[in-house]
Amino acid sequence: MTDHQVIFMPSGKRGRFATGTPVLQAARSLGVDLDSVCGGRGICSRCQVQPGRGAFPKLGVTIADDALSEFNAVERRYDEKRGLKPGRRLGCQAQVQGDVVIDVPPESQVHRQVVRKEAGGAPIVMDPATRLHMVTVEAPDMDAPSGDLERVKAALAAQWDLHDLRMSPALLRRLQPVLRKGDWQVTVAVNHDEGRIVDLFPGLRTAPLLGLAIDLGSTTIAAHLCDLSTGEVRASGGVMNPQIRFGEDLMSRVSYAMMNPDGDVEMTRAVRETIDALAVDLAGQAGIPPGDVVEAVVVCNPVMHHLLLGIDPVELGQSPFALATSDAMRLAAAEIGLTSVAPGARAYLLPCIAGHVGADAAAVALSEAPDRQDELTLIVDVGTNAEILLGNRERILACSSPTGPAFEGAQISAGQRAAPGAIERVEIDPVTKEPRIRVVGCEYWSDDPRFGPATAETGITGICGSGIIEAVAEMRMAGILDASGLIGSADQVGTPRCESMGRTHAYLLWDGSRDEGERRVLVTQGDIRAIQLAKSALYAGARLLMDEAGVDTVARVRLAGAFGAHISPRHAMVLGMFPDTPLDAVTSAGNAAGHGARMALCNRSARGHVEDLVRRVEKVETAIAPRFQEHFVAANAIPHATAPFPHLPALPDVSFNTASEGRARQRRRR
Amino acid sequence: MTDHQVIFMPSGKRGRFATGTPVLQAARSLGVDLDSVCGGRGICSRCQVQPGRGAFPKLGVTIADDALSEFNAVERRYDEKRGLKPGRRLGCQAQVQGDVVIDVPPESQVHRQVVRKEAGGAPIVMDPATRLHMVTVEAPDMDAPSGDLERVKAALAAQWDLHDLRMSPALLRRLQPVLRKGDWQVTVAVNHDEGRIVDLFPGLRTAPLLGLAIDLGSTTIAAHLCDLSTGEVRASGGVMNPQIRFGEDLMSRVSYAMMNPDGDVEMTRAVRETIDALAVDLAGQAGIPPGDVVEAVVVCNPVMHHLLLGIDPVELGQSPFALATSDAMRLAAAEIGLTSVAPGARAYLLPCIAGHVGADAAAVALSEAPDRQDELTLIVDVGTNAEILLGNRERILACSSPTGPAFEGAQISAGQRAAPGAIERVEIDPVTKEPRIRVVGCEYWSDDPRFGPATAETGITGICGSGIIEAVAEMRMAGILDASGLIGSADQVGTPRCESMGRTHAYLLWDGSRDEGERRVLVTQGDIRAIQLAKSALYAGARLLMDEAGVDTVARVRLAGAFGAHISPRHAMVLGMFPDTPLDAVTSAGNAAGHGARMALCNRSARGHVEDLVRRVEKVETAIAPRFQEHFVAANAIPHATAPFPHLPALPDVSFNTASEGRARQRRRR
Repeated sequence: MTDHQVIFMPSGKRGRFATGTPVLQAARSLGVDLDSVCGGRGICSRCQVQPGRGAFPKLGVTIADDALSEFNAVERRYDEKRGLKPGRRLGCQAQVQGDVVIDVPPESQVHRQVVRKEAGGAPIVMDPATRLHMVTVEAPDMDAPSGDLERVKAALAAQWDLHDLRMSPALLRRLQPVLRKGDWQVTVAVNHDEGRIVDLFPGLRTAPLLGLAIDLGSTTIAAHLCDLSTGEVRASGGVMNPQIRFGEDLMSRVSYAMMNPDGDVEMTRAVRETIDALAVDLAGQAGIPPGDVVEAVVVCNPVMHHLLLGIDPVELGQSPFALATSDAMRLAAAEIGLTSVAPGARAYLLPCIAGHVGADAAAVALSEAPDRQDELTLIVDVGTNAEILLGNRERILACSSPTGPAFEGAQISAGQRAAPGAIERVEIDPVTKEPRIRVVGCEYWSDDPRFGPATAETGITGICGSGIIEAVAEMRMAGILDASGLIGSADQVGTPRCESMGRTHAYLLWDGSRDEGERRVLVTQGDIRAIQLAKSALYAGARLLMDEAGVDTVARVRLAGAFGAHISPRHAMVLGMFPDTPLDAVTSAGNAAGHGARMALCNRSARGHVEDLVRRVEKVETAIAPRFQEHFVAANAIPHATAPFPHLPALPDVSFNTASEGRARQRRRR
Repeated sequence: MTDHQVIFMPSGKRGRFATGTPVLQAARSLGVDLDSVCGGRGICSRCQVQPGRGAFPKLGVTIADDALSEFNAVERRYDEKRGLKPGRRLGCQAQVQGDVVIDVPPESQVHRQVVRKEAGGAPIVMDPATRLHMVTVEAPDMDAPSGDLERVKAALAAQWDLHDLRMSPALLRRLQPVLRKGDWQVTVAVNHDEGRIVDLFPGLRTAPLLGLAIDLGSTTIAAHLCDLSTGEVRASGGVMNPQIRFGEDLMSRVSYAMMNPDGDVEMTRAVRETIDALAVDLAGQAGIPPGDVVEAVVVCNPVMHHLLLGIDPVELGQSPFALATSDAMRLAAAEIGLTSVAPGARAYLLPCIAGHVGADAAAVALSEAPDRQDELTLIVDVGTNAEILLGNRERILACSSPTGPAFEGAQISAGQRAAPGAIERVEIDPVTKEPRIRVVGCEYWSDDPRFGPATAETGITGICGSGIIEAVAEMRMAGILDASGLIGSADQVGTPRCESMGRTHAYLLWDGSRDEGERRVLVTQGDIRAIQLAKSALYAGARLLMDEAGVDTVARVRLAGAFGAHISPRHAMVLGMFPDTPLDAVTSAGNAAGHGARMALCNRSARGHVEDLVRRVEKVETAIAPRFQEHFVAANAIPHATAPFPHLPALPDVSFNTASEGRARQRRRR
């Protein structure tokens, strides 16, 4: 028998095949990425290919008109019922008859790329853990009375080379009706990461399966509902973490668990019910039954991780911050309270790096993949604690730094969450010392005539994390603040906005008292001190990792999280939040934790990657490092004084260290 | 360094060991069966040994006084606190210093034998799936912040060579408090059959773990609570299957599931609640917390198997009787409703042989082990369906035969369950045709003067399965019944006890009408017909297997189940319930299914044995075998006429085939 040259594009994989070999079979034997659910029965249409025509001189192939077998009855029937694009063939029906170049269009590839819409981060290459496989199962036979499940497994082994699959007893209930409804044809959803059957559908099912990428934060719970074939986000949503009623920050929740018998059980129940309701809500938005959700990936900090799993987080509240378990977890979705999804659905929890550096930091590391870069990258995820990663191909270091919640607007006199009405951007004229602001929910600056009417409804209610950082940095640049962090008096600075407040001064950022229902927003000396403490901690953490790595500079700084998306790199650097770096090398990583969750959901090798990466991470504990304290103290100035800032303009050389403030300090020390 | 001959008894295993080798270490390296929970720390006392003294000429060893190191401080402390028997040493403390013979007493062996108290069946050799292993776990370290679980696993790998253990998230909740309570020493219960951590105890735990062997019958649920170290039954109990309210027999329960939406869910809930309550009850009887129960083994018929697992049994009610799953199952105990036991407890369900031949039959096969015998054995387990096994080392055949519930007293005019007041034994004088009876709950025959007073309380309420079999056989032997199964008239038989009843006759077995509150117990022609149908089905099933095996006789007949324990082999053979066999070769197997459950509970290799055995069983389906019908019809006579009965005395050659009965039969056929 003659054989023919078959070349698949875009992979370029080629081989010689005998006359009559189906294209799908040729593709499989070469390891070409060509999808199929029905396994070659000509009914799922996933294996569509586009054969070339004419001469391909570069490939050294000229394609004859009869290089593939004629359009057959199966293809005609499919074309009539569903429509095939011109020139397309079903790979399982078209047989090789001559040399041919075959293009696999993106929608026929399992491992298609999903381009990320947000800035930065790696694109996701689809390789979902859960895939559909149709099989024809032997009907039961009284003379060979094996169970229906055993015959389904035998069919998966024979027809898809899938062996030793497990299945939850919860799914057994569905098995017999599904097999009979499908007349012994069944499409099996297999989770290849776990080697498990997770769902069963009568006959052929090509409708996509869905998965949830859940970013379980202390304050908000965000989730994306993703199509597991295309990676498309079908619905997104976020809700408040219901545990807020037990404590705003993590440590107060740990205290709640310590003080109240079964307090942790209550918190576990609350968060589980909420993520299940969120799953139902997103499915509703996407117009699919929640039962089509077969997988969930969860990223979260260690306290949320333990509370989700039903583990009392008390050990995470005290040294040595021991995790009950740190490895990645694969469980039934129902075991974390996702009971409205498919009964066989699974959940994957990313590994935790340390007691203060959670699965969310692992997700950031997965998304940013410093371990796959030559350049040394510093990755900062700022929340109540800052989680800091430093590394490249050779080494990855991680620590958590106790910044406190000042960067989130807490502990700030006029601070609030980033909600409509909150000041989020600030500019201060260095000559007049007059500010202009922007608030969440309004696109105009306050010196634009459209600003007043646009903000009339919410009013100016306070200042959020990014706003206070910009305010402090602008005050420093405008000479309202000196390097030690002192606010000057009205006389010293030359503006009545610097008001006296006891022995210190405060800067009037927004005088809403003129309009009814608004407030005066002052940046007080206490606010400056809170930001100084937070930024010193952040800087000291980064610096500690750099010491460990033996470096003085980093090539890139990536700011992760919602905070990273809103912070202005220039202002952050004026504050000295991280080591001096060229400004264009400081970028937002967007919602890197959420993106990491989506990667682990859509690509199963990403799970191996993050597990391996976390095992490689060298954890540096700030609480016990003497150098952390040194860096922390040295970083108090604005900007910190431990290194030059060649990438920033010179800042005003002012000093407001008056006797009164000095005395006040001495008094505090006593 | 010198080395010494060390011989362990009773195994006879021997080897040479250097001076200073601990006896426990020597035993382990030789694979000697010497227990240890603490892993050689001198605290669990499980490795006690008895060194020999003086000359052992047969072994070629003379033991010097200093063959072992001196009694050390650890042993002294243990002796003072708990007491060591004279001459005993702790194997982990005593070190080899010279040639020595060391006896491992039975209580220091893991694999000790449990002698079965009931008649027959194999003894159980202890090799429990779940065993205790104490480890010292590294304390958490901020610089190497792995989770507590990961450090427990590392300790089990390093100290016990146990790798890749899984653990249910339900147990994670306990982990951290247990580790801290035990100051980083923890005893881990490992299920070696599954490679799973199933429980955790602070410090050293030597108190035994317990397991449940559950025999889940259609009518009653029986369970044994067993000590997993010694095999001792700590408590036993039985309760009615609560599903009886949904249907007395299995097929009426299948109908209930078909007719009522969620009928199967109700039945599942009922049986799960009952086994959990039974577990709590047995633990209470034994004076242990239910949380000490770490394992359960369940044997049951296929319908109960499916209902326990939450699978609608509808397919088991109709040809081809397809099981949803037939393989053995390993699940969380909570998945079958055992929620009061240890949170990590596991359940093992034996495999089902076919849609009519369940895990109970598999347990009988495990207990009887025909596959390990040269002689061909016929094993009969009579319930509503008879499950029949025939086999030896070479082949095992199995079938189920639709005997109906007549053998259980159902479908019999005065039939009832074997409860106090039920006639269970019958003798009829062949000359006077007068009967004497015994009833359940009374040890005297009815012609004993102590009988009346003893039964006065319950009265004579009816006749149970074993009673009706004896009655029919005795009627045949006394010439009251002819070979075709007809009861003669008073004139024909010569006793007024043969009463007219329409066109047929009935034999008055007990005339309770003379005493208040009692009843007349008659054996009617209909009763005889019901027994004839049942015994023909039983015989035909056994005969079908013999045809398949190509044999005319079997070496042994074993009668399993409660029925087997009460049936009289001679009477059963007069009826022709099974092929002719020497009477002394027909024996009761006792509660073989329950014994099989205990074997699978106490010996983990028994699980491999039964799974392998069930895979080897050749299933013969009676419903579709034409020869079954032939045998069934031919087996109608008493005894059946298809083979001679050399092992029975000749039976009266009577015939009562009157015209009236002939006409009645003809009428019925129309």
